[in-house]
Amino acid sequence: MREHNIAILAGDGIGPEVMAEAEKVLAAAGQQFGFSFRAEHQLVGGAAIDAHGTPLPAQTLASCEAADAILFGSVGGPKWEHLPPNEQPERGSLLPLRKHFNLFCNLRPAKIHPGLEPLSYLRADIAAKGMDVLVVRELTGDIYFGQPRGREGEGEQEYGYDTMRYSRFEIRRIARMAFDAARQRRGRVLSVDKANVLTTSMLWREEVIAIAADYPDVTLEHIYIDNATMQLLRRASEFDVILCGNLFGDIISDEAAMITGSMGLLPSASLNESGFGMYEPAGGSAPDIAGQGIANPVAQILSASLMLRHSLGEGAAADAIDSAVSAALADGCLTGELLAPGSQQRPLSTREMGDAIVQRI
Amino acid sequence: MREHNIAILAGDGIGPEVMAEAEKVLAAAGQQFGFSFRAEHQLVGGAAIDAHGTPLPAQTLASCEAADAILFGSVGGPKWEHLPPNEQPERGSLLPLRKHFNLFCNLRPAKIHPGLEPLSYLRADIAAKGMDVLVVRELTGDIYFGQPRGREGEGEQEYGYDTMRYSRFEIRRIARMAFDAARQRRGRVLSVDKANVLTTSMLWREEVIAIAADYPDVTLEHIYIDNATMQLLRRASEFDVILCGNLFGDIISDEAAMITGSMGLLPSASLNESGFGMYEPAGGSAPDIAGQGIANPVAQILSASLMLRHSLGEGAAADAIDSAVSAALADGCLTGELLAPGSQQRPLSTREMGDAIVQRI
Ligand SMILES: CC(C)[C@H](C(=O)O)[C@@H](O)C(=O)O
Ligand SMILES: CC(C)[C@H](C(=O)O)[C@@H](O)C(=O)O
Repeated sequence: MREHNIAILAGDGIGPEVMAEAEKVLAAAGQQFGFSFRAEHQLVGGAAIDAHGTPLPAQTLASCEAADAILFGSVGGPKWEHLPPNEQPERGSLLPLRKHFNLFCNLRPAKIHPGLEPLSYLRADIAAKGMDVLVVRELTGDIYFGQPRGREGEGEQEYGYDTMRYSRFEIRRIARMAFDAARQRRGRVLSVDKANVLTTSMLWREEVIAIAADYPDVTLEHIYIDNATMQLLRRASEFDVILCGNLFGDIISDEAAMITGSMGLLPSASLNESGFGMYEPAGGSAPDIAGQGIANPVAQILSASLMLRHSLGEGAAADAIDSAVSAALADGCLTGELLAPGSQQRPLSTREMGDAIVQRI
Repeated sequence: MREHNIAILAGDGIGPEVMAEAEKVLAAAGQQFGFSFRAEHQLVGGAAIDAHGTPLPAQTLASCEAADAILFGSVGGPKWEHLPPNEQPERGSLLPLRKHFNLFCNLRPAKIHPGLEPLSYLRADIAAKGMDVLVVRELTGDIYFGQPRGREGEGEQEYGYDTMRYSRFEIRRIARMAFDAARQRRGRVLSVDKANVLTTSMLWREEVIAIAADYPDVTLEHIYIDNATMQLLRRASEFDVILCGNLFGDIISDEAAMITGSMGLLPSASLNESGFGMYEPAGGSAPDIAGQGIANPVAQILSASLMLRHSLGEGAAADAIDSAVSAALADGCLTGELLAPGSQQRPLSTREMGDAIVQRI
């Protein structure tokens, strides 16, 4: 029987609750498809700050290094918000993990599930057309990591600065991921930049166009980031793969996620070149509902499915989980935040939702 | 009789048509409030490229220098899209004008007008709560102008780079504009940054907090740019003044404008420290409807009103124009794009809309 090593970093807030359901689903899929897991549970984020004084302790990192993939929950909460921004749980765990494992490729699908159109924040006639986009966001470059950065000068002339930066190599590498993904989907790539202003974006556009030549079957269009935030509201249904640098991808992927109105359903993957990856829900740790057993585990479960597909070579099991989730939703298995306002239906608990998916695998 | 010197740069597409209406309205307001105009009309954007080979000819700039304010139409169109990004009409006229006149303060109000909620791209129950925000965007700093920028290296290691940068002085200056504006409105400032990642944003946040101390009557909150694009969809009605740097302001102001679904109603102002300013509609040159006499002149007319208020000291006339516009809209005077789909009402032409406003001054 195949055995996969995974590091499980449940984190804070609803992280542990939804992670328990994802583990249940993984076990069920393993049983059916003939593989098992060796999982190491480690602290991360606020929980790790409380226990060890740092959001990413050495032993957590060591566990990740020994694993085939990282299944990540969510981190952060009011308890740690007084900390300086770059010592906070999110910033202090996510950025170092991305950099350490060279997780350059962030996949963030955002989809309005059939039947859940009323949850979308878009006007009904637009939401009715649906949305199914995959944001492919570069994750280890750009202004997040560019050097130099710092402060110079004195008094009111003191200034802070950061460097946006992309090499041809980095652009090509992420562009290929987007074009490859588009081939498996509806064959369209929309590349987001600000090439009317930024030198980095001009190079970005040049390289994306060069890569497109290898994919004559994929359609490429370009859009400025400001216009992208607008067109996503006006004609979300027309977009397929959205390719972005790190900063613009941060913005667009969150806008797209919020548009669905069902953030609890959205997974994400962050991959490196050797197939290692970190998998986490798109939403946050939701401290306001933590511990009540009402959080939606689907985003965590679909993140586990992405892990099976992209890092563990278990595509069939991933398909089975995805289908089970779709079937459960189609059968009306819904946690509270997915119910229409005023609905008389009893919401499923976190555990019941996990069970509903396990049953359908 | 007071005389004001203005430079009129109608530009491309619908620019000239809507500008004619704005001039009519200005003349009517002048007659009633006792002032007149000396207006110089100059080419800008694509029209200037066609005539003089450059989007901002020296004589256009000279005319602006001699004026008390610039009333700007809109620039750009498919005819000039083959040009390199930084020679295109928009980029090649707007950025140099902003820099030349030190127009550091961009005011971009975005409002869902009462009765026009159905046009908003937001879900009906959210749009029903309304939105009335003022984006205060810094316009002469940030990654738009930061040095160094360029390309270095060779082969696949060649990289493009840009510098994001703000000084304490620049941050204070724009922050004061936001707090002053909030005092005239609902007393709330939301400052947008990415202080969990960017050094520039950390300084931004520090300085905004320092300025807030001078405005104990104004409430200050901070939000990360990614979250801002989300919260604007979820609870637009709760925001008042949104303070941003140049890049994040570009993104947020466009998202807010699109949310209204009535971009043809939104003006903007770009001011320097001595009250000189450039005034332009938030929307583009709309080449698809240019020359048909159906474009909405309101954004241009409200831009003229902002000019009266901020650069020409004619606040009473500005109030009269604003009221006339509101009255016309409330009376159901609507151009085509404001009509509900399937409406039987005859849309007003550009000229009729201008007349409707003139009549109500
Ligand atoms: C926490 C923060 C540093 C992070 C980012 O900006 O990348 C988050 O917003 C995300 O998108 O994963
Ligand atoms: C044309 C472009 C350079 C400009 C900007 O990015 O500032 C435009 O998008 C705007 O917002 O006025």
